[in-house]
Amino acid sequence: MRTQVGIIGAGPAGLLLSHLLHLQGIDSVVLESRSREQIESTIRAGVLEPGTVDLLAEAGLGARMKAEGTVHDGFELAFGGKRRRVDLVELTGKAITVYAQHEVLKDLVAARCAADGALYFNVSGTTIDGIDSDAPSIRFQHSGAEHTLHCDFVIGCDGSQGVSRAAIPEALRQDYEKVFPFGWFGILVEAPPSSDELVYAHHDRGFALVSTRSSTVQRMYFQCDPKDSVNAWSDDRIWAEMHTRVDTEDQQVIEGRIFQKNIVGMRSFVSTKMQHGRLYLTGDAAHIVPPTGAKGLNLAVSDVRVLTAALQEFYRSGREHLLEAYSETALRRIWRAEHFSYWMTRMMHRLDGVSPFEQQLQIAELEHVTTSRSALTALAENYVGTSAV
Amino acid sequence: MRTQVGIIGAGPAGLLLSHLLHLQGIDSVVLESRSREQIESTIRAGVLEPGTVDLLAEAGLGARMKAEGTVHDGFELAFGGKRRRVDLVELTGKAITVYAQHEVLKDLVAARCAADGALYFNVSGTTIDGIDSDAPSIRFQHSGAEHTLHCDFVIGCDGSQGVSRAAIPEALRQDYEKVFPFGWFGILVEAPPSSDELVYAHHDRGFALVSTRSSTVQRMYFQCDPKDSVNAWSDDRIWAEMHTRVDTEDQQVIEGRIFQKNIVGMRSFVSTKMQHGRLYLTGDAAHIVPPTGAKGLNLAVSDVRVLTAALQEFYRSGREHLLEAYSETALRRIWRAEHFSYWMTRMMHRLDGVSPFEQQLQIAELEHVTTSRSALTALAENYVGTSAV
Repeated sequence: MRTQVGIIGAGPAGLLLSHLLHLQGIDSVVLESRSREQIESTIRAGVLEPGTVDLLAEAGLGARMKAEGTVHDGFELAFGGKRRRVDLVELTGKAITVYAQHEVLKDLVAARCAADGALYFNVSGTTIDGIDSDAPSIRFQHSGAEHTLHCDFVIGCDGSQGVSRAAIPEALRQDYEKVFPFGWFGILVEAPPSSDELVYAHHDRGFALVSTRSSTVQRMYFQCDPKDSVNAWSDDRIWAEMHTRVDTEDQQVIEGRIFQKNIVGMRSFVSTKMQHGRLYLTGDAAHIVPPTGAKGLNLAVSDVRVLTAALQEFYRSGREHLLEAYSETALRRIWRAEHFSYWMTRMMHRLDGVSPFEQQLQIAELEHVTTSRSALTALAENYVGTSAV
Repeated sequence: MRTQVGIIGAGPAGLLLSHLLHLQGIDSVVLESRSREQIESTIRAGVLEPGTVDLLAEAGLGARMKAEGTVHDGFELAFGGKRRRVDLVELTGKAITVYAQHEVLKDLVAARCAADGALYFNVSGTTIDGIDSDAPSIRFQHSGAEHTLHCDFVIGCDGSQGVSRAAIPEALRQDYEKVFPFGWFGILVEAPPSSDELVYAHHDRGFALVSTRSSTVQRMYFQCDPKDSVNAWSDDRIWAEMHTRVDTEDQQVIEGRIFQKNIVGMRSFVSTKMQHGRLYLTGDAAHIVPPTGAKGLNLAVSDVRVLTAALQEFYRSGREHLLEAYSETALRRIWRAEHFSYWMTRMMHRLDGVSPFEQQLQIAELEHVTTSRSALTALAENYVGTSAV
């Protein structure tokens, strides 16, 4: 087998890259270890920056997103028994769109299929060879047979646990990591939305987030011990916790049937450089953000935007300067988002182990952010993604 | 002896309070353990917020400040080999004034003397009695004799190590503290200013600050181990450190004769409530900020402004509601300044013991603050003191 760009991973980064390259007349093959059903049904992120929405729309992927996604002009910060609105449109001129990541994936898979794009699910034993040469290759098993995909470039879009990052020798990488001592307990609920907009709540007992996936499915989270067990949380206990952390005098969380419970750990991670020889990393393969700032999916899209332009330039002119600058270019936005996500995480969560002084500063910062127009604007710009250098 | 308001401490808070009360026809006595020469010659802070300048001018204390102080429209943030200007006037419409604290003190002492204000220096053995009653008193020794000052109120303006805060039972106080693991090595230099404006420098080797006291005396600081010894630092070693941390390609620190060296520890501290019975605390007696944000003197002035209004209301109408709200009112601005000073300190200093990830975030934050107009405006508003709730 031979293609121009071999892509490992059919998450948002890999599929979007394949689609954008196709629009530029560049051939690619996407290899994915999971099944199509798996990637299309796993409920993950859901907040799209306007830049992400624009890129998807320009790439012909906007129809269902526009029809089924919901535009949110702002969100709410709850603390001290009150809610304070962050009016994104008023502060930045931009809104966000709530449209679930797995719906984006369905649109991308459909677009790749419609274009007869090469897309292999249920692939195993993927290994990368020859990235120091001009002729790298990817070996993999599919439908019981061994294959070798010869290509000009290998793009690692296979997430944090994938094989791509590990293909760059550790001695050539500088990895940065912060593991948070808390996790998110996530629930999926059959209920109408509790609020017109997302609610980020800071409470003495911990953070909580009221989000939505559709008019009938709601996504809620509350800060928990990452080592806690899902089974330790009955529905009643979960609802008591959500009410305590989020309800105000005149606004209550709306209960419903909980049909999924999970606990996710929280960490920040950046691997540099994001490239070596003919291998380039995008999205979670190179960096992780805690979900507080809703940046993960948007960063993956941003990486793909930068890499697509670099590959396009290479195939158009043979010049490699954009490819050489890929990591440095992408990292400017990544570090901005890493800082924002870390800052928002520290401001909103219950921080055990910090001094009472620092707990007071957390409240002082929340007061400042919600009463200073300049500070609120900085937050809003980061949230909609227009503050990148 | 009898007065209306007994004031312990002839620092900026105590003297300004006495002066402002005098302007309202309220009688006070100020007791100070140090000599007049000592308080008038100890070189300390030097950055006055516009609100501080306005208050001093309105109180008739502006003549020498206007003539000898220097208005600074901005300051510079140096990192990564470059300097980025924070244009305070453009961002906030306000400027700061550089006028040394001991010059403010001279003006205040002169004003109290001109009004025949009761001002006792070299006082010892100060103790406070009866703050739970309507008739508190202060016992002290002066010129070899024992005195008792009977008053309506006792105001503690005697700094962090004074007797006033200790007069509030510990069980009734909640103290918050953060001690930083670094200090400032300060030097006073005979030289012209190295820069038209203050330079706050972040460098891998640590923070440095280029400040000024006059056209011939400069104040400079660099981050050091708080346990280091002044004697370990020759002039040559000091200048080498300042050049390394602050110089850019086209701007160098100007050397001169170093005539004072000292090392100061850095900490944040807040004691609440700032009042008990008829005792009220102001300035350093109740709270300490690290000097990075130049807030210490300005916070003391802000406390005095709030307390003067409350005492004025009491003597005018007998109503105590402003006195009762004193601590809560003052603390809003104090926590804002505590947060800002802590944030600025963490952003500008070398933080040993934090992870490489958090070191990268520090650079990401500096890049953000100096390239995002909203973030820079938030910094500038905090610096000039207009961001308080």
